[in-house]
Amino acid sequence: MQSNHMIETFKQYLTFFSSLTHAQQALIVENTQLKHYAKNETLLSDVSECSGLIVVKFGQLRAFYSTEEGKQITLYRLLDGDVCIMSASCVLKNITFEVSLAFETDSEIYIIPIRIWRDLSQTNLTVQAYAMELMAARFSEVMWVMEQLVFKGIGERVATFLMEQSTLVQSDILTTTHEVVANNLSTAREVISRTLKHFESDGIIALSRGVIKIVDFKKLQALIA
Amino acid sequence: MQSNHMIETFKQYLTFFSSLTHAQQALIVENTQLKHYAKNETLLSDVSECSGLIVVKFGQLRAFYSTEEGKQITLYRLLDGDVCIMSASCVLKNITFEVSLAFETDSEIYIIPIRIWRDLSQTNLTVQAYAMELMAARFSEVMWVMEQLVFKGIGERVATFLMEQSTLVQSDILTTTHEVVANNLSTAREVISRTLKHFESDGIIALSRGVIKIVDFKKLQALIA
Repeated sequence: MQSNHMIETFKQYLTFFSSLTHAQQALIVENTQLKHYAKNETLLSDVSECSGLIVVKFGQLRAFYSTEEGKQITLYRLLDGDVCIMSASCVLKNITFEVSLAFETDSEIYIIPIRIWRDLSQTNLTVQAYAMELMAARFSEVMWVMEQLVFKGIGERVATFLMEQSTLVQSDILTTTHEVVANNLSTAREVISRTLKHFESDGIIALSRGVIKIVDFKKLQALIA
Repeated sequence: MQSNHMIETFKQYLTFFSSLTHAQQALIVENTQLKHYAKNETLLSDVSECSGLIVVKFGQLRAFYSTEEGKQITLYRLLDGDVCIMSASCVLKNITFEVSLAFETDSEIYIIPIRIWRDLSQTNLTVQAYAMELMAARFSEVMWVMEQLVFKGIGERVATFLMEQSTLVQSDILTTTHEVVANNLSTAREVISRTLKHFESDGIIALSRGVIKIVDFKKLQALIA
């Protein structure tokens, strides 16, 4: 039962999984651990705890970077089905920073052990391409975070726009498309979609087709200088 | 002659090059362009100009990120023999940001065309592993930059230490090792080495064995809040 759910999850979220041989799939399934973490626990990604490739069964994790001085920068969040490659980064030369994970709700995660992940990613082109894409995605998210931290850029402008619209229609429900927001702010739709997705992951808004619902006005206001 | 120099450069700096077949090596050499850029020219990495893998023959390039608002964040510098993978990032899904290059001196760069790089990196495990390592290194540098921008962290502490030592010995030449600096600042030698390398690339200091020479006191002072 347990392993059936695992296989379904891996087929859905690890795009390389179906391309593996049956023997490789079995090796992963037999060695993967399902671990439960309680809210507020943390998992470090330093060499001593380089755990492996993490697939979130359910829950909410905050990935953050700790500075030398012990300050934290939130980089991105992991939700159901998300995969964390930074917990497997000890496989990679040249990664000189550490990303830690904080569990924001009770969560269950699958951990594919590092030795299995290392073998796979070093011998299989499809797996390696998957790893590269995942890292590229994380890199892109971090660049976005950096821009917000340094310049309070597009995030602040989108927040301001949503506040104004909400006041205008006297509602927390805005009937609008990403395209419309983009046109109003003279930027690309992709930029708006990325920004709104970040807001959603931060619990500020909820997105559905043609609708943006503001769920936390206080956090939204905090984005505006 | 030209292609001999190219082959030597590639063998030295593209660690995968020697592992390629003769046919693959020949394909790269025949299609690589050598381009000259004058000081202050720029090269964008957006989709329209996704040029390929760049190997710096000689010169100095500044890699920077442009925000939506047109502000710039310097990410790292490329010197003789350095390789720029971000100029080939259109090969990658999930890269949603653009890195531009500004030539800080007259420079010559080899450009391995994007179609050749795409084929190689998608079919060759060694090449793909090289690409992954290069991206991991850039990702790490960007994290360092982010920490400096947000917290003025270790950079400021090292700058302060160098200034103090310089005052102490009344000289711009500091006879000291990275280990000693690390011990003084209660951090790891690797962190100090990375920081000093950044300072050197920014033209603030010059490094040689057991010696740190301060070449730009004004820039060093500017790092201290």
